[in-house]
Amino acid sequence: MTQEQQQGLNLDQWLGAYAARANTLSVSEVRALFAVVSRPEVVSLAGGMPYVSALPKELLSQSYETLMASRGDIALQYGSGQGDPVLRDQIRELMALEGISSSVEDLVITTGSQHGLDLLSGLFLDEGDVVLAEAPSYVGAIGIFRHYEAHIEHVFTDDDGMSPEALQESIDKMLAEGRKIKFLYLVPNFGNPSGVTLSEPRRHKILEICRRHHILVIEDNPYGLLYFDEKPPMALRSYNEDGVIYLGSFSKILAPGFRVGYVLAPPAIRDKMVLANESALLCPSSFSQMMISEYLATADWQKQIDTFRGVYRDRRDAALQAMQEHLPGVRTTKPNGGFYLWLTLPQGIDSKAMLPLAVKELVAYTPGTAFFGDGTGQSNLRISYSYPTPDNIKIGIKRLATVINLQTELLETFGHKGAER
Amino acid sequence: MTQEQQQGLNLDQWLGAYAARANTLSVSEVRALFAVVSRPEVVSLAGGMPYVSALPKELLSQSYETLMASRGDIALQYGSGQGDPVLRDQIRELMALEGISSSVEDLVITTGSQHGLDLLSGLFLDEGDVVLAEAPSYVGAIGIFRHYEAHIEHVFTDDDGMSPEALQESIDKMLAEGRKIKFLYLVPNFGNPSGVTLSEPRRHKILEICRRHHILVIEDNPYGLLYFDEKPPMALRSYNEDGVIYLGSFSKILAPGFRVGYVLAPPAIRDKMVLANESALLCPSSFSQMMISEYLATADWQKQIDTFRGVYRDRRDAALQAMQEHLPGVRTTKPNGGFYLWLTLPQGIDSKAMLPLAVKELVAYTPGTAFFGDGTGQSNLRISYSYPTPDNIKIGIKRLATVINLQTELLETFGHKGAER
Repeated sequence: MTQEQQQGLNLDQWLGAYAARANTLSVSEVRALFAVVSRPEVVSLAGGMPYVSALPKELLSQSYETLMASRGDIALQYGSGQGDPVLRDQIRELMALEGISSSVEDLVITTGSQHGLDLLSGLFLDEGDVVLAEAPSYVGAIGIFRHYEAHIEHVFTDDDGMSPEALQESIDKMLAEGRKIKFLYLVPNFGNPSGVTLSEPRRHKILEICRRHHILVIEDNPYGLLYFDEKPPMALRSYNEDGVIYLGSFSKILAPGFRVGYVLAPPAIRDKMVLANESALLCPSSFSQMMISEYLATADWQKQIDTFRGVYRDRRDAALQAMQEHLPGVRTTKPNGGFYLWLTLPQGIDSKAMLPLAVKELVAYTPGTAFFGDGTGQSNLRISYSYPTPDNIKIGIKRLATVINLQTELLETFGHKGAER
Repeated sequence: MTQEQQQGLNLDQWLGAYAARANTLSVSEVRALFAVVSRPEVVSLAGGMPYVSALPKELLSQSYETLMASRGDIALQYGSGQGDPVLRDQIRELMALEGISSSVEDLVITTGSQHGLDLLSGLFLDEGDVVLAEAPSYVGAIGIFRHYEAHIEHVFTDDDGMSPEALQESIDKMLAEGRKIKFLYLVPNFGNPSGVTLSEPRRHKILEICRRHHILVIEDNPYGLLYFDEKPPMALRSYNEDGVIYLGSFSKILAPGFRVGYVLAPPAIRDKMVLANESALLCPSSFSQMMISEYLATADWQKQIDTFRGVYRDRRDAALQAMQEHLPGVRTTKPNGGFYLWLTLPQGIDSKAMLPLAVKELVAYTPGTAFFGDGTGQSNLRISYSYPTPDNIKIGIKRLATVINLQTELLETFGHKGAER
């Protein structure tokens, strides 16, 4: 929407007062969908919501009671900008499961890992700076990078994650253009939206390339503990302390409603993160942090993660089974963890143009273009199997097949002109 | 600290990678104090912490149980970027107490009102833009404005709040310098750090001046309901819907540990606020919001605010009484609500230089320079009476008197050279 159109719609008398960065904000394709897909008759394979109903509420009630009886006044008070030291110590244990050793001083608690990425982007990105990212990449990260007016350079990514050769090419290209590369951003385990995992050999190669070019790596890992069969390789941070910033989150292994994530960063960056956190919101919620801290201290949280793994494994199975049954000709990634399938539609079908037809068939997904900063992804779409029941996933994919098959037939009848242009 | 010094201390290998805005972050004078004053033998009159012990915990336990029994899965899930509609509706009732009528659509829930101000500043402030603010002004706001590289223009403020004549002069001066004024920021009720309240006639004059110059007003009102005797005048927003953005908070009337505040803004600005909120942290904490919503629905929250009023009134009384007894020659504001006294020291005493001596006498305060963007405030200091008991307030002020009186004696013996320079 142009400023003139906006003015026409909103009669915004403050239009002349906004900062340049205010124009970088737009309704994301995922967010805009939420209104449509909240109707109960629609099977939504669109949102990436965790299935929090699988969390027994009594585990939290115990945390609440212990917390209020022992440290209620601290939980209700302002805390430090770096976050609760007890929780930070517990997070070290969590990160050790992925091979990370760290000190409690190097962690900063954030209001979800989204805010961690927002603060980091604020620390590093000037207008025009380059962020290297997977193709496709997390929609929320793309939104942040755009907001800081960065250039997002997508790097070819396949079933083993980001390609080191393609990364080297992208770096060379950016440097040849005289651009300043600020960091590489990636979700190495069960990526959003791809579902793919970066292989161990590639982890080493990518770290080596970034070390050689002095490029910081931001490793965003909300899904790493939600593997279905074998564990993913160790975290990139476990191989490199000085060149990797690690982002973690309780949103997928506990509950997103608390908005608690964390950032592990080299000391000088961590110092700036704490100041940025304080400037933005004084301190993260003591109450949320300490609820989680009590939960980790009193509940069998590893068993709860096992429960979540089982739930999502069943849903992944249902999704892949339905894909095989109803859409055998459509290529999909086959994730070993996390929340998502990434589909590649037959040539000529535009997933965004198809969405209204899908919603008419009572199924929703996220169009692939949401996961690129450069407008590509038209023939892709993301299916999220984390929230609907296995039965609804099957119904949803069957409905999706109806729409896709109709589109394919139309293309076969009337030719591939759209795709060949 | 210069970049070179920082590099020497931290060996920051990423020093060349930071964005320009990263250099705007520095340890605030208030924050840096926290380490020193947390020793139990020090009476801290420095931090602005509310006395959350005055909140009966059973009021929250009831909220927790009702919430988890009825809407637990929603409280644990991601919510909307604008915030819980039920809570937004309840906030309308709260704002009505200060004369504000609004629609539920015009409210955005934020992670404390600090984050509301951060997001608004991001929407409006380009480098070099002017923010008009009280003299003195809230330290957290100054930090944000600096972070967005704005110029903070302080406007003379006395016991009736900001002077409309001085505001007009500041505007004229800024316009003559060719600067772009983005908004006026003020805390009209029981201001932090001044404790003063903007009089009703001045509210109208200030709104009229801003209307005439098309300057947006940001009204930050965390303390308005914490009056001790008569209610403060109606909110500025109650007189002007289109030109005032209103910030409210649950930090002082309930508990800061939840990090829940809210912004009431004209529709076009509100739309951008929602997008900025989503970009920064996806959504505010559902759990925190719904805990507060249940509290407002089930507890007698107006009675609880009365309880807080009584607590802070007693402490204000203790502080003013101790001032009269031990420091009769030091000028102080006499707040009718809120958390703070603002002291003006005898000529020649530098409150920042005096702080180490005060801490040696086991009392802490916040130096006046923290509340100015331009280095002034050397002869002022802020006393916060919200957190220590009345007895400790008296002990603290007595200790402060020892330090101030010693400084005064030294000055009288050795002359006012320091002050006359």
